[in-house]
This record gives sequence, structure tokens and C-alpha cells, in this order.
Amino acid sequence: MKIKLERKGELFIISAPSGSGKSTLIHMLLKEVENLEFSVSYTTREPRKGEVNGKDYFFVSEEEFKKMIENDEFIEYAKVFGKFYYGTAKKQVYSKIEKGKDVIMDIDVQGAYQIMQKKPIDFTSIFIIPPSLEELRNRLVSRGRDSMEEIEKRLNTAKNEIKYLKYFDYVVVNDILEDALSDLKAIIFSERRKVKRLVNIESIYKQFTEE
Amino acid sequence: MKIKLERKGELFIISAPSGSGKSTLIHMLLKEVENLEFSVSYTTREPRKGEVNGKDYFFVSEEEFKKMIENDEFIEYAKVFGKFYYGTAKKQVYSKIEKGKDVIMDIDVQGAYQIMQKKPIDFTSIFIIPPSLEELRNRLVSRGRDSMEEIEKRLNTAKNEIKYLKYFDYVVVNDILEDALSDLKAIIFSERRKVKRLVNIESIYKQFTEE
Repeated sequence: MKIKLERKGELFIISAPSGSGKSTLIHMLLKEVENLEFSVSYTTREPRKGEVNGKDYFFVSEEEFKKMIENDEFIEYAKVFGKFYYGTAKKQVYSKIEKGKDVIMDIDVQGAYQIMQKKPIDFTSIFIIPPSLEELRNRLVSRGRDSMEEIEKRLNTAKNEIKYLKYFDYVVVNDILEDALSDLKAIIFSERRKVKRLVNIESIYKQFTEE
Repeated sequence: MKIKLERKGELFIISAPSGSGKSTLIHMLLKEVENLEFSVSYTTREPRKGEVNGKDYFFVSEEEFKKMIENDEFIEYAKVFGKFYYGTAKKQVYSKIEKGKDVIMDIDVQGAYQIMQKKPIDFTSIFIIPPSLEELRNRLVSRGRDSMEEIEKRLNTAKNEIKYLKYFDYVVVNDILEDALSDLKAIIFSERRKVKRLVNIESIYKQFTEE
């Protein structure tokens, strides 16, 4: 019988300055890498047209959300624009990890930093950065979604966020999309070969010595 | 100007039970991965026909070798069959790493374990294992190099060596060669994206904020 490496899943926290191509890369990863799932957040805002409960978000009332906070059910949560709550529930992530699935969590730099400080769970952190501030400006301009004022604000935020690089485990420069994607895949695949993540070392020994 | 991630190289210690395909895999890695070099050992045995000093080994006298031991110049060394010395010199590895090259060191399990205990240098360890003991036996038989007695001896050694799995950072099962090769590449490429290995974080910050 051939050896099978059995392992716990891993939580990958992915952050990036706005405009770095993080969402595109995560989308491609989820499409191309098996056994990798996206962590679905809880929110108190209303579902937008086409959004599916349990797929895009778990839509809950503010009362329910606050009860979850009280019960310490979140890895992280935040009140955005002082209005709606957003948060990642521990049980969502744990249930996937226990089944050996890897989980991707898309989170802003401040949120990632909070998790790194509190360490409510074991995770691997990846920081995606654009190849330069100039290139980031070009991308933000060419996608034509924001006003020039908004773009300058985003660039200033990026300048601040880049300082958090040192807190992350891995860095991926998104210059050429395919290269960045292949870097991310290498990170996920190599983490899957970590001995410390194996849950069946004893049975591997047994299999090898009793055959 | 685009960001360049500047980094120190990394020493990869690769071990495997005899017959696991380690040498083949290392050979392929060195051919296909840029910026990756093999660590050349020192030995006191005579060069065999076709062996090149400085490429296959550094051939030195026993007197020279013993002086190097005295001066603590080795990461590890051993006297093989009570006869010839073999060892890896620190300076060989360091000079490559300082230039940002990754270095592969091919070493037996006992030697790898010694390095892990002493930690004379920073390294990443990879254990290559065959998919099963049965498969290992088949491979040893079909390569037709050893007597049945020798094969049983190798299998017994393998049974003992597999117990060292828990001390390694990564495990690669060499069932299908191409898959094992791609696992090894992922490990090397992901290590190259480790933030802790960057030597130019400050200049990345500067480049981003002063642009």
C-alpha cells in the first residue's frame, strides 16, 4: 500500500495594497488549485442583487452578529464606515481545516496585522505588492473606477501599508500576473509538504516497518 | 523603477533512504532551477577516473582535512568505512549563500540529523521517501546493482531512517518522478519568497514612499 500524507489544512491570509491584483489572483487560485476554499465572511449589511447567502457572505442581523462577538466566535471582525459589521468566524475556518482543506482569507492589511498580533489561529500570511508605486498608479488610473482624488488617497494608503511587509511570512510581487500566480501556488503546495502539518506520521512509520 | 527582492541564499539539506531517487531528483533540480548550486564536499580519498577537483570533490590530504577539522571549518564531516574523510566546508556554502545562491547539500539521514542537532548554519531540510517499502524493494531489485543480501540490508536501513521523518521541515514522496520534482521546485521557490530572507526591506520601503 502506498503512503498517503494526511494533513490538517492551513489558513492562508492574503493581503495587499488596493490595486495590487489580489482579488484576481485569489480568483485564479481558487479555480486552479484543488482542495482550496475561500473563507466566507459574516456581515450585517443587506445582500446585494445576485449575492448568495453562504457563498458570498453569511448575512446575519446586527443582534446575531453581536452575540457572536460576545461568544468570541470571530477570528477578526470590524465595523466598516461605522455602519456594518464584517467578520470571519472561527468555526467556518476550523471545520474546513479539520477536513484537510486549505482556506484562503482575503483581508485588508490592518485586519491581517490584528490577526498576527492576536494569533487566534495558526496561519500562513502572504503579502502581495505591486512592482512599484508608479505601476500601481497606472493600474488604478487605467481601471477607471476611481476619481483622481480617490486614487491619490489609495496611493497614500498603499505607502503606509507597504510598511507592514516585515510582519508577513511571504511576499509576492505582482508584476507579471502568471508569475505571481505561480509564486502563490508554490507557497500553497510547499506548505502542503510541511512535516509539522502531517497527522499520520505514526501510521507512516508503521506502514514502513511492518510491511 | 521596479522593486527587486534581494535576498540571501538558502541551504537545502536533502536526505532520503537509499533507492528513493534522491540523486536523480537533485540532478534534475540543478538542471532546471536557476540560481541553485550543489555543495561540493571535501574528501581525502583519491579521485576516480574522470572526477574533477572542485567540481566532484575537493581532494585534499588527510593532513589538510584534519587541519580543517581543528579550525572548525566543517558544517559536518565523517570518516567513512573508518578510512576516508568526507566533509562539507562552511566557507563553500557561505560564499554561495552570501551571493544569493541557493545551495543543495546531499547528505545521508544520520548526517542530516547531526546538522539538525548542532545547527551550525541556517537551513531548510527535505526528506524524500519512497511510496512504500515494497516499491523501494522493487526499485532496488530492478536497478540490479545489489545482491539480495545487500538489498535486504538497505531495506532495513530504510526502515530505521524513516523514523527521522519528524525532524525534517518538508517531506516529498517520490512516487511519480515528475510530481516529486515539482514538489521540490515548489519548496525552493516558496522559500525564495520568504520575507525573513529579504535583505532590502528598507530600500523597498524607501522606493515605495519616495517615488
